[in-house]
This record gives sequence, C-alpha cells and structure tokens, in this order.
Amino acid sequence: MEFTVSQIADLVGGEVQGDKRAKVRMLAKIQEAKNGQISFLSNPKYENFIYVTEASAVIVDKNFEAKKPLGTTLIRVKDPYSSFTLLLEEYYKIISFQKLGIEEPSFVGEGSTYGEQVYRGAFSYIGKNTQIGKNVKIYPQTFIGDNCTIGDNSIIHAGVKLYNNTKVGNYCVIHSGSVIGSAGFGFAPQEDGSYKTIPQMGNVIIGNHVDIGANTVIDCATFHGDSTKINDGVKLDNLIQVAHNVSIGDNTVIAAQSGISGSTTIGSSSVIAGQVGIAGHLELGDRTSIGAQSGIGKSVPKGNVKLMGSPGFELLAYHKSYAVFKNLPDLSRRLKQLEEKILNLPSFQ
Amino acid sequence: MEFTVSQIADLVGGEVQGDKRAKVRMLAKIQEAKNGQISFLSNPKYENFIYVTEASAVIVDKNFEAKKPLGTTLIRVKDPYSSFTLLLEEYYKIISFQKLGIEEPSFVGEGSTYGEQVYRGAFSYIGKNTQIGKNVKIYPQTFIGDNCTIGDNSIIHAGVKLYNNTKVGNYCVIHSGSVIGSAGFGFAPQEDGSYKTIPQMGNVIIGNHVDIGANTVIDCATFHGDSTKINDGVKLDNLIQVAHNVSIGDNTVIAAQSGISGSTTIGSSSVIAGQVGIAGHLELGDRTSIGAQSGIGKSVPKGNVKLMGSPGFELLAYHKSYAVFKNLPDLSRRLKQLEEKILNLPSFQ
Amino acid sequence: MEFTVSQIADLVGGEVQGDKRAKVRMLAKIQEAKNGQISFLSNPKYENFIYVTEASAVIVDKNFEAKKPLGTTLIRVKDPYSSFTLLLEEYYKIISFQKLGIEEPSFVGEGSTYGEQVYRGAFSYIGKNTQIGKNVKIYPQTFIGDNCTIGDNSIIHAGVKLYNNTKVGNYCVIHSGSVIGSAGFGFAPQEDGSYKTIPQMGNVIIGNHVDIGANTVIDCATFHGDSTKINDGVKLDNLIQVAHNVSIGDNTVIAAQSGISGSTTIGSSSVIAGQVGIAGHLELGDRTSIGAQSGIGKSVPKGNVKLMGSPGFELLAYHKSYAVFKNLPDLSRRLKQLEEKILNLPSFQ
Repeated sequence: MEFTVSQIADLVGGEVQGDKRAKVRMLAKIQEAKNGQISFLSNPKYENFIYVTEASAVIVDKNFEAKKPLGTTLIRVKDPYSSFTLLLEEYYKIISFQKLGIEEPSFVGEGSTYGEQVYRGAFSYIGKNTQIGKNVKIYPQTFIGDNCTIGDNSIIHAGVKLYNNTKVGNYCVIHSGSVIGSAGFGFAPQEDGSYKTIPQMGNVIIGNHVDIGANTVIDCATFHGDSTKINDGVKLDNLIQVAHNVSIGDNTVIAAQSGISGSTTIGSSSVIAGQVGIAGHLELGDRTSIGAQSGIGKSVPKGNVKLMGSPGFELLAYHKSYAVFKNLPDLSRRLKQLEEKILNLPSFQ
Repeated sequence: MEFTVSQIADLVGGEVQGDKRAKVRMLAKIQEAKNGQISFLSNPKYENFIYVTEASAVIVDKNFEAKKPLGTTLIRVKDPYSSFTLLLEEYYKIISFQKLGIEEPSFVGEGSTYGEQVYRGAFSYIGKNTQIGKNVKIYPQTFIGDNCTIGDNSIIHAGVKLYNNTKVGNYCVIHSGSVIGSAGFGFAPQEDGSYKTIPQMGNVIIGNHVDIGANTVIDCATFHGDSTKINDGVKLDNLIQVAHNVSIGDNTVIAAQSGISGSTTIGSSSVIAGQVGIAGHLELGDRTSIGAQSGIGKSVPKGNVKLMGSPGFELLAYHKSYAVFKNLPDLSRRLKQLEEKILNLPSFQ
Repeated sequence: MEFTVSQIADLVGGEVQGDKRAKVRMLAKIQEAKNGQISFLSNPKYENFIYVTEASAVIVDKNFEAKKPLGTTLIRVKDPYSSFTLLLEEYYKIISFQKLGIEEPSFVGEGSTYGEQVYRGAFSYIGKNTQIGKNVKIYPQTFIGDNCTIGDNSIIHAGVKLYNNTKVGNYCVIHSGSVIGSAGFGFAPQEDGSYKTIPQMGNVIIGNHVDIGANTVIDCATFHGDSTKINDGVKLDNLIQVAHNVSIGDNTVIAAQSGISGSTTIGSSSVIAGQVGIAGHLELGDRTSIGAQSGIGKSVPKGNVKLMGSPGFELLAYHKSYAVFKNLPDLSRRLKQLEEKILNLPSFQ
C-alpha cells in the first residue's frame, strides 16, 4: 500500500507541482502529517500548516497561491476536500477488502451460497438457503439466519446477528453487536392481565450503501410479507432502536441512541440528532430535522421542518420558550409584585 | 405446516361456514391475505375487506352478518382477535420449536445437563453445573455461564450472554445480544479520588413467560443471596437498562431504551414507555404508567398513577404546563406590557 | 475459599474479639448474614442487627461499644467500610482470576502473544500481532482484532468486540457485548444528497483500572494517529455511547445510556448521570456534574459545575425554573386576571 504522488494525482484528476515520484503510505490531517503521508488544505484557517508540514504531499485548490516557500509537493485539484475524501475511501476499500478466505471452524447450512472473494471469519454461522454476494466480508462470530441475502461488497462486522429472512443490499456496512430482524414488541393483552406474544413473522430489508453502527437493533415487521425498511444511503449510528414496520427514507441520517416506534415512516434526506424518540404510527416527511433528545408525538407529513422538545414542536419556537423557561423564577416574582401593586391601587382598596 | 379449515376450527372452538377442507398454510392481515392464508375480522372498520379478500378462510364473530356475498370460508368464534392470536401463537411455536439437535462445535462444561428436544447451536457455550430444561432452544454463539438454570420451552437467541448463576423460567424468550447478570455499577470512592470496584456477587432471576428484547442489559444484584428480579409475564423491549437489585412486578411492560437505576422496585401491571429513566432506590406501585422520555426521581408507592416529565409528575398536569410552556414568549411579553402599564398609572407616577 | 477470622484480621489489619479460628466462606450484608459468613457494621442505623446476626464474624469500628450481648466474633478496624471493600475485592480477585487455560476451539492469528496465567475461552478470536499481558481472562466468543494490546490482569467478558489497534491497560474489566473501536459516525455530504463514508482510521486507548459495562460502544478516532481516550480509573456503565475522538479524564464516572458526541473532552473526576447527552466538539472541565437526562450543548471548561436540563444550565437554577414550570397553568391564569383587572381600571376606560 505505497503509492507515488503521480499515481494519486491520476486518481483524483489533479496536477502535480513538485516531486512526482515521492512515495505516500498514509493519510493524515495537515497539522499532524509526517514524511510518507499525504494531507489536504481546504479551510484557509489551516494555511499556515502547509509551510511547515512534513507531509510528502498536500492536495490543494488549483488556484492556491503560496505566500511562503513550500517544503512539500502539491497536488492541485478542483475540490481538495472531495479529493481527499475520495482518497480516504480508496484507502479504506484497500484495508477493508483485503481480508479473504475462510477461517475454520465456521458453519454453513444447506443450500447457502456465496460469491467470489468472500471472507468468512472463524465461528461465524450461516443458516440454510442464504445467498451471499461477491466480495462480502463476514467477520468472526457473526450469525446469519436462514433465507437471508447479502449483496455484493458488504461488510458484516464481528458478532452481528441477522435473523431469518433479512435482506441486506450492496455496499453496506454493519458494525459489531447490531441485531437485525429481532421480534417486534407486540403483545395481546389477556383478560387476566397477562400478555400473549404476537409472533413477528415479517422481515427487515436494508437497501444499498447503508451504514449501521454498533449495537443498534432493527426489529422485523409483524406480518409475513411485510418488511421494516431501511432505504438506500441511510446512515444509522450506534445503539439505535428501530421498531417493527418502520420505514426510513433514502439518505436519512440518525445519530446515536435515538429510537423509532412501530409503524412510523420517516421521509428521505432527514437528519435526526441523538437520543431522539419518535412515537409509533407517525408519518414524518422528507427533510425533517429533529434536535437532540426531542420526543416526536405527532405526524408532520409535509417535511422541511425543524423540530425540538418533548413533545417536540418548531425548533426556533422551542428555543424561545426555553429562554423564558430559564427566567421563570424571575417571571413568577414579577407577576407576584404586579399582583401586590394592583391590590394596593386605590380602586381596589 | 398445512392445516384444513376444519382442523383450525377445532383448535379455536369455532364453527365453519363454507369449505371445511380448504387448506391454510399462513396467517395474514385481512387487507393483504392471499389464497392459502387465513385472516380475521375484529374491528368493523375492516369489514369491507372481507367481501374482496383472497384469503381461504376468515375468523369472524359468531354473530357476524354478511352484507354482501362472500368468496371465503368463515370460522365463527366468540372473540376473533383472541382466536387469531391463539393461531399466531401455535404457528409461532411450530416455527420456533422445530429446531432440534446439536450442532458442532459447541461447548458444554462439566456437570451441565439438558432435557429432551433441545437445540444447541454451533459455537454456543454452556459452563459448569448448568441445568437446561426440555424443549429449550439455544441458538449459536450464546454464552451461558456456570450454575445457571433455564426452564422448559424457553428460547435463547443467537449471541445472548448469561453470566454465572442466572435463573431463567419457563416459556421465556431472550433476543440476540442481550446480557443478563453483568456486574452492577458499584464503586467505593477512595481518598485519592479513584474508585474501587465493589464486586457484584448476586444474580438475576427471571420468571416464566418473560420476553426480553435485543441488546438489553440486566445487571446482577450486589450481594450473594440477593437477586435482580424480573417477575412472571414481564415484557422488556430492546436496549433497556435494568440495574442491580431492581425488581419488576408481574406483567409489567417496558418499551425500548428505558433505564431503571439500582435497587428500584416497580409494581405489577405497569406500563413504561420508551426512553424513560427511573432513579435508584425508588418504589413505584402497581399499575404505574409513565410517559415517554420521562425521568422519575421520587417514589410513588400507591400506584395507579400516570406520570410525565423530567422530573416526572402527574401526566395531565404535565401536559397543561407544557401547553403554557409553548406560549411562554407570549406570556413574557404580556407580563412586560402589564408592568409598563402599571408604571404609567397615575398612582405610580 | 475458606478463611479463618484470624487470617481475615491479618489482611485488614484488625484485632479479633472472639473466636479467631471461626471459619468464613462468604460475605454478606449484616441484616442477611448467615453462619459461615462475614459482615460489617459502619452505619449506626444498622447497629441493632449486630445483636441478632448469625454471621460468624462482623467487622466493626475499633471503638465500637456493644450495648447488648453479642453472639458473633468482632474484627475491630479503623474503617469498617474500607476493610469490607478490601475483603470484597480480594474475594472478587479469587473468583475472577481462578479461570485458567485454553479452551478449544479458539483462534489466534500470526504474531500474537500472551503472558502467563491466561484464560482463553472457547470460540474466542484473536487477530494478528496482538499482545496480551499476564493473568488476562478472555471469555468465550470474544473478538480481539489485529495489533491490539491488553494489559496485565484485565478481564474481557464473553462476546466483547475489540476492533483492530485497540489498546486496553492493566486491571480493566469490559463487560459482555461492549464494542470498542467501531467506526465513528462521519459522512461527507455529496451534491446528489447522498453521503460518502469517511473512513475512520484512528483507534481507542483505554487506560488502567477502567471498568466498562455491558453493550457500551466506544468509536475509534477518525484519523490515523489519533485516539479516542478513556483515561485511568474511568467507570462507564451499560449501553453508553462514546463517539470518535472523545477524551474522558481520570476517574470520571458515567451512568447508563448516556452519550457523548464526537471530539468532546470531559475533564477528570466528573460525575455524569444516566441518559445524558453531550453534543460534539465541547470541552467540559474537571469535576463537572450533570443531572440525569440533561442535554449539554455548550462548553463549560472551568469545571466544578452542576448542570441540568436540555439544553442544560446550572442545576439549582434548573430546579427553580422547573418548580415554576409545574405551576405554569396557575401563572397563566393569574396573568390573565391581572390583564382584565387593569383593563377595568378607571384610567384605562
């Protein structure tokens, strides 16, 4: 994993100013980069670092004009941040997909198949009639039930558990400890005060390019033929709860420890902060933004809203109310003073 | 797993109107049921679906009177919802308990025993002197420590971890990734500002008919001889925290991501919504209801209360206060206006 | 594991009053202790129990004066609580470190080494070039990636997952299901509304004497060379989220289900209650105290503060505001009355 500056310039479509044959093994922030590493300069406030960096090369804007002498090679591009992200991605792929082959003991049930270049770690378990695509990496101690499918180029980290019938798309990453397809929380109350478990017989369908953090849980749908749906490009952080029959739209991002109750639909391109709770059977439209720790109890299907509070309402209104909340003791005191003043007015005596 | 309508009618104690020999393989909602499936009609708002359903049979109230021609067979019962739930349960048992036998490699320590019809998945680990009942299903990668007991007909899903001395009753289900019996959070402060870990040497006792979701954690009790207790019929959702020495009463239901601090007792038949936090050393009575995201800081031993807020108080009062909270900027403005008006009164000039 | 009272007195530096050869096998609370057990009396409100206890010995203050006849042996020490904690610790060590040897199958990659007295459970997985110290206990189904180090006397419970390059110090305990070193939540927005995953290539460094609860997640730092840092003596409870590049200072304690967003620094000796959320890129000073369910959105680098609320502010002020919040409907009614009274004043008519 060593590249010349020239190779990297070709990859990002940039022009080299300096030593084309300089070698690069690693990426780093400009304020910390060492010899053999490549960095980037996008935000002008970091410009000073470029004159003192030990980096072997720095990706810069094509119009960058150095104000002092440079000790590093430049790669000039249209958008340094995007180019650096592209490099990070390529580097990540090389690291992520270098694992290959089958470690034993591992378990594969009847009728399951998998594509080329699979990695299957020790103590991993694959049930019956499960189809695993090309270049998939299944880390140790992973459980994949019966009748699952996993698309090409997906990575299932150590200890992930996929219940029967789970479908995972291409280019997905699921981090350790996450559980996909567990039974939804459904119980029928009985006359004696006890509950009967309602069997949960649907599944979970995860689209392409979905990232799921560690120790997150996604429950299956209740009925056979129904699915809990995590659509393309969704990014879920750690320790999130997604209940049965939820649907999350394309490219929606949800931060850690948030929870979505059963049968709620969330639109696409939404941003939900951490520790948010969303009640069941709601519909939230596209581009919904929800502030941290909010509790959403009503549908807002129109989308394009920013919500905050528990129960949540419009973000700006929440902050205005909360500003007064901080001064409530003062408000209360002033109200009492007014009451006394008015009582003392001649007309009330 | 194919039954005749006649067999199903016998199971639920109903009367058939139509083709007794029609075959059924699956259950479904009435609005989605296909040929070969059985459904139910309980809520009148779904009645229209019964006239167009493709279902091979529908369970209906014994007094149901069709207003249009029917293309499906009816099973008339006293309570269609209960009958359908019963069917779901039977179906679930058939699915859940069909797994049998021992997959290798799996690990069983000295002195451990298990009953008939056990399933023990690959890479599962059972410690020493652990007793496992009849018809228990232990999925792959499960860890069951020393001196545990698991009652008859319980299901332990993939990757569950039970620490030493954990007791699980009959007909329990524990979902993937849950951890039962981990050390409670107890530390003795030292003079230098550090903490010494207080060893946690009690255990967890789980009653019968308890369901525990995925990635939930239940800590053991602190002292030897003490237990954290999850009583009969309790239903815990995913990602719940139950601290050391907590006791949860019969048939109490707790939604996802709630947390209960150490030594708190919760009564029976209570309903706790999601993301609720309950402080330590509290006593909450029977039939306590707590709204989502509430934080309970005081004991309410009398029970039969609905609480909301952080800190929580009576639900209705919370909603009334919160309604005013939303209008606080207006309240604040009006107060200021009053102050100015009064300052301008002749008697204050 | 049976000791004489005399041996215990030597260990805690106490003086025996009674039967020095009495045998003790277990520790217990004074209100529950049985024959063969040892307890302690520290809080005077439990004094009555000492006159009726069945305990074989009780640790008491050196100046304790019995007001009634005693049926138990006393061990007089300077600080009974500390002495009992010391005993608990010793007992815990005996229990915790008795596991020895290697269970098969387990997996160890090339170049990995481990010290004396290791326990390595069945189905555990150790990657390449990982160094494991002396007396380390690695429970079944644990995953330890490549290039990790685990210091002496640490315990890694069943099913813990450590990603590549994780460093764990000496005398640490990590409970089941916790995930250390998973990818931080970083995504670069693209013009088409999708996100590109920013590879997370740093690691996690855990100091000495750190306890980590069950199902907690600690993400790795973003860049190579950077680390998410959990410093010496930190105690983390269950189901906690620690994002990329966070740093937690010495002896800070965090209760269950709290979450800390990326790049935030928390000082030493802080106490953070349960279900707290802390935003990203903040600096909180030493001895910061945060009330349950609070949401911290601003830096408070000076430390020595108590915060509460969402967004959080000074604890006492929060409680004063919240007291008024509970009475908001009354406040609102009174304001309206005043408005009407003033409208009815002669000067406004």
